[in-house]
Order: sequence, then C-alpha cells, then structure tokens
Amino acid sequence: MRIVVLAGGIGGARFLRGLKRAVPDADITVIGNTGDDIHLFGLKVCPDLDTVMYTLGDGIDEERGWGRTDESFRLKEELAAYGVGPGWFGLGDRDFATHIVRTQMLAAGYPLSAVTEALCDRWQPGVRLIPMTDDRVETHVAVTLPDDDPAAGPSAGPGAGSGAGETPPGSGVRKVIHFQEYWVRLRASVPAEAVVPVGAEQAKPAPGVLEAIAAADVILFPPSNPVVSIGTILAVPGIREAIAEAGVPVVGLSPIVGDRPVRGMADKVLAAVGVESTAWAVAEHYGSGLLDGWLVDTVDAAGVERIEEAGIRCRAVPLMMSDADATARMAREALALAEEVRAV
Amino acid sequence: MRIVVLAGGIGGARFLRGLKRAVPDADITVIGNTGDDIHLFGLKVCPDLDTVMYTLGDGIDEERGWGRTDESFRLKEELAAYGVGPGWFGLGDRDFATHIVRTQMLAAGYPLSAVTEALCDRWQPGVRLIPMTDDRVETHVAVTLPDDDPAAGPSAGPGAGSGAGETPPGSGVRKVIHFQEYWVRLRASVPAEAVVPVGAEQAKPAPGVLEAIAAADVILFPPSNPVVSIGTILAVPGIREAIAEAGVPVVGLSPIVGDRPVRGMADKVLAAVGVESTAWAVAEHYGSGLLDGWLVDTVDAAGVERIEEAGIRCRAVPLMMSDADATARMAREALALAEEVRAV
Repeated sequence: MRIVVLAGGIGGARFLRGLKRAVPDADITVIGNTGDDIHLFGLKVCPDLDTVMYTLGDGIDEERGWGRTDESFRLKEELAAYGVGPGWFGLGDRDFATHIVRTQMLAAGYPLSAVTEALCDRWQPGVRLIPMTDDRVETHVAVTLPDDDPAAGPSAGPGAGSGAGETPPGSGVRKVIHFQEYWVRLRASVPAEAVVPVGAEQAKPAPGVLEAIAAADVILFPPSNPVVSIGTILAVPGIREAIAEAGVPVVGLSPIVGDRPVRGMADKVLAAVGVESTAWAVAEHYGSGLLDGWLVDTVDAAGVERIEEAGIRCRAVPLMMSDADATARMAREALALAEEVRAV
Repeated sequence: MRIVVLAGGIGGARFLRGLKRAVPDADITVIGNTGDDIHLFGLKVCPDLDTVMYTLGDGIDEERGWGRTDESFRLKEELAAYGVGPGWFGLGDRDFATHIVRTQMLAAGYPLSAVTEALCDRWQPGVRLIPMTDDRVETHVAVTLPDDDPAAGPSAGPGAGSGAGETPPGSGVRKVIHFQEYWVRLRASVPAEAVVPVGAEQAKPAPGVLEAIAAADVILFPPSNPVVSIGTILAVPGIREAIAEAGVPVVGLSPIVGDRPVRGMADKVLAAVGVESTAWAVAEHYGSGLLDGWLVDTVDAAGVERIEEAGIRCRAVPLMMSDADATARMAREALALAEEVRAV
C-alpha cells in the first residue's frame, strides 16, 4: 500500500511513528512542511523535517518532542556570550551538526530535497521524506506587539516621540514576524492577525511530491496544524490540486479535541484564517473538495453529523497520541475510514 | 611604548602573554598569521588568530595549547555520524561558536579584520589583534604521500594499474595539500618538499597593519614558526618592506633551541626552504636587512658570534617558555636587546 502523508512537526512525526507500527510494510512518502524553516546563525534550520527525521530515526528527545536526545547547549551559550542571537530558539550541540551539514550541501548547490535524502541516509526513518518544495517559503505572522516587547522597537516606548505614521503609545506596534518568532519566542501570546506563507505562490513542489501523490493509494492528514503545517504545504501551487484529483481516499485526523488543540497552539493561527477551534470547523476549512474522511475524537462525537452533512465521512474515535499503541490504533482507524470511503 | 608583534599560533600566543606581563602598559599590536586558515564544514576557521585571542583572553585549553578550555566534542561526533569530514581537525562544541559567528559576519560582508575586532570585543585580549590580510591566503605543502595513505588515492595502491603519468607503485604519490592536513593529519611525518602561501602575492595588508608598523617603537618576532607563521606574514607584499624601513629595532627570538624546535615541527618546514634547523640558520634566513637583534637559547651560545658576524646583534638567554614568569623574562630580554640596538 502506498500512503502519502502531509506532515508538520511533532504531531505529524508522532502520527507517522504510529502509522509505521500499524502498517509496517506500507510504502510511506512524507511531504514535509518547510514553511517554518529559518536561517539562524547563517545556518539553514528545517524544524519540521528534522522532527520527522529524528522521531522516526530514534534520535528525538521524547520529552521535548523536538531536537536530539541526550542534548547539550554549550555552543548556544557561547553564541550568547558573543552577543549573537536569537537566544529564544533552542539549538543543541548535537542538533547543530544537522544544520551545518545541510547548509554546507545547500551552499554546494544541492536542492533541499537531495539534502534531506542525504541526511535521511543516516537516520533511516523508514519513510521517504520529501520537503514540500525546494524553493524558499517562509511563514510570516502579522501581530500587534505590546509596547514593552523587546521587538517592538525603541520608538514604541512610553515617552517616545509619536511622529506621523507611528502607532500611538499604549496601543502596541504592528509587525510582521517570522513564524518561529511568533511560536517560540512569543509562545503565540498575542493574536495572529494574519498568517502568510511568503514565497509559496512562486514555489514549485519538490521533485517526487506530485509523483508520490499521483501514485498514492491513500492520502493522510495527520493531526498537524491545519494552518501553518498542512495549510502551508497545500499553499504550494499544484499540491492541493494533485491531492484533490488523485482519485484516492483523503483522510484527516482532527488536531482539535474538545475545542482545544491536542498540543501546540493551533487555535491561535486558526483564528487568523477565520476558522473556529473545533473539529468540525477544521474539517469544513479543508472542505469536501479535498477531504473524503475525517476522524474526530470521541469527545467531539456530537459534531459527526454536521461534518457528514458537509459531505465528509466522519468517525469519532480516541485521538490522543498517548503512546505508540494508541497512535497505531488511530492510524488503523484512518486507514479503515479510507477503505470505507473507497468502497462507496 | 608601541610594540608590534608578528604572531603564529601557540608559540606566538604564549610569548604575547609573557610580553603583556613584562610591559603591562605597552600598546601592543599583533599581526596574526592567516595562512593556516581553513574552511571546514562550510565555516571559516582561523586557528592562529583564535589561539592568540583565546590565550590572551583566558579562554584557551592550557594543556593542548589550542581550542577552548572545558571543551567537548559532541558536534564533531555528530558530523562524523553523517559521514562528513575531516575527522582529523579538532573543533570543539564551544569553539564552533567562534567559527559560526565569524562565518556569519564574513557572509554579511565584513572583512576579516573587522570580524576579528568584533570577536575580540568579547575576549578582551589586551592587545590589538589584526589579521595580516583580509584577503584569502592559504599555505599549501607539496609532499610525497606513502602509497597506503588514505589521501594517496585508489590508483596508488599496490596492484593498481599504473598508466602514463602515474607514479609507479612503491614510490608514493606527489600531492599538494593544505597546511593543516600536513600539520594536523600527517603530523609532518613526511618531508615538506615545498611550502607555498597561495594567494599571498595578490594579498594586501589588512587595514592598520602598515600603520601599526610605521608607528612602532619596537618590532618583535616571537619564537613562532619562521616559515609557515612569520614567513607567511612576511610574504604579504608590503609587510616585509614596511618592517625593514620602519627605522626601529626588529628583534626576534629563536624557535630552535639546541637544533630542535622548542615545540611543533618547525624543522620539517625549514628543510623545505633549505634552512637548517639551527638558531643561527634561522637568523640568517631572516637576514640582517630585516632583523636587528636575535635571542638564542643559552645552549646555543656558541652560535652567537656567527650571528653577530652576519650583522645581527645576538644574546644567549634562557628561551624555554616554561611558565609565565620565564616568558616575561624572555620578553624583557628581547626589549633590552632592542634598546641596545637602538643605542648603537
């Protein structure tokens, strides 16, 4: 069975581990989100690709969900001693090696997809991991920063002159920031007013992406962030269309359980695209033109009917990825729903 | 008193520590060798500049003489796990930060001299450290590698075909390698047939170098390598001439004591330039056109007369930098000899 999975970071990676356990012989291609890639210290960092690679390659820090196991942060402390930031992004000593190898290969002219394949040679994730695109796409978030935020700038402080065009003191400072700054530094503590995958419109799917979709028997959306993970992948021209036209079951798992994200802060970015934080609202956001089946958690069983009325087959099953077995059961439910859809 | 010192790595750095102790109020400018700079993992590494900076900034590993104190090598192990080399060059986790900051600043367009100044902001070495040039100079060494050396290549192995132009098996393989590969990987275990500071002819002295020489009261050559450290600095057009024409005492300290290098393997590269490994031969190699005074160790007192006959004032004093006090005494002797020269 050929399965294509669109994946963000932690949620996608953990789901994939369950999927591999559920169907060990399946041929799995993962299309990874690169919208939250960031250049730090001159190095290209791909948090979502690395989380998938480390998680499936048994190199992940299980507690944190990102970065390497048995990690230390000495290099980062030294960078801080040089006054070089940002300090809010956690890069460990072991993790740095991945970014150094990646940056060196990119500088040598290899596309990100080839670099990712080379890195996976070491990690043997047991899936084919392809970045959504080899082009640069960067998710930016429009926010209003409080006046006292360090990134708000000196002109925002009380007593600063307020010339024409400046925001009056006390009302905050509008800024567009990198997704990682919003997510990691600010912990999504202010509302996301807009989320823009900058560069997506000009991006092309990486080699193998459209081919994998066209050859798939099933396409799965794990409980990843519907806006900044799966939404960004779908924003690369050609990918959404290829999925909609693949003619195979497309089944997703709700990242929202009981009106709250299972983990992370998906509700903050859902608001930015005008979508309620409910399992049914996310299903309707994807829409029946894309999605054939949707799994919601048992606590959201009341919404099943509404989702089915929207033309999306829906089942309520436990959706907490509490351990590998529970996650494998979720994967089996998703594949079972796909077979139901196919049988119609 | 304004002192200019031409410095390589460990020997130069330790001498400078003694010089600072001897004359704490002196205004010291160090012109650092960059000929053994190397690009590793896409990062610009300047071993000699860093050794000076770390040694004078109390960040050096005293035992090894290079790299950071309290160092770990986890990142390097990870690079090896990716199959990325070279493994023979020791870059520690803390040390990596320096190379990352430097590479990032160079990529942003700052010249090496400005980058070095910025790095020194943290280390406060108590001297002004200037690279000899902002241009790329790389010392290469011509060697004949044994057939079984990994770098000799597959065609050199026994039983390999020996086509036209190939070296016959058993006689080794001629190659030109980076100085670091000769020094660190091979430990100078084969003779250096030629030493070439590639790029030196086109290089210009970094901003401040010629100005510091012109303003100096004394110019010192520490017991650094006369070929690949001080020789490389002198190979940058304009520097040798500026020193010769400065009209101030130029005094050196012999790196050879009793026909052997005090540390390192200076004899290996001296042979490549046809200079014997003796205190007097090194003095004659610099020549009376450049050098006014020369300190040899007491064990080499027999050579003093010969050196003075060559027109270079010479004294025999203890030249082992066994501790900071002994090194400070050497520095005082060098400055005393400079005053003798000046008084003539």
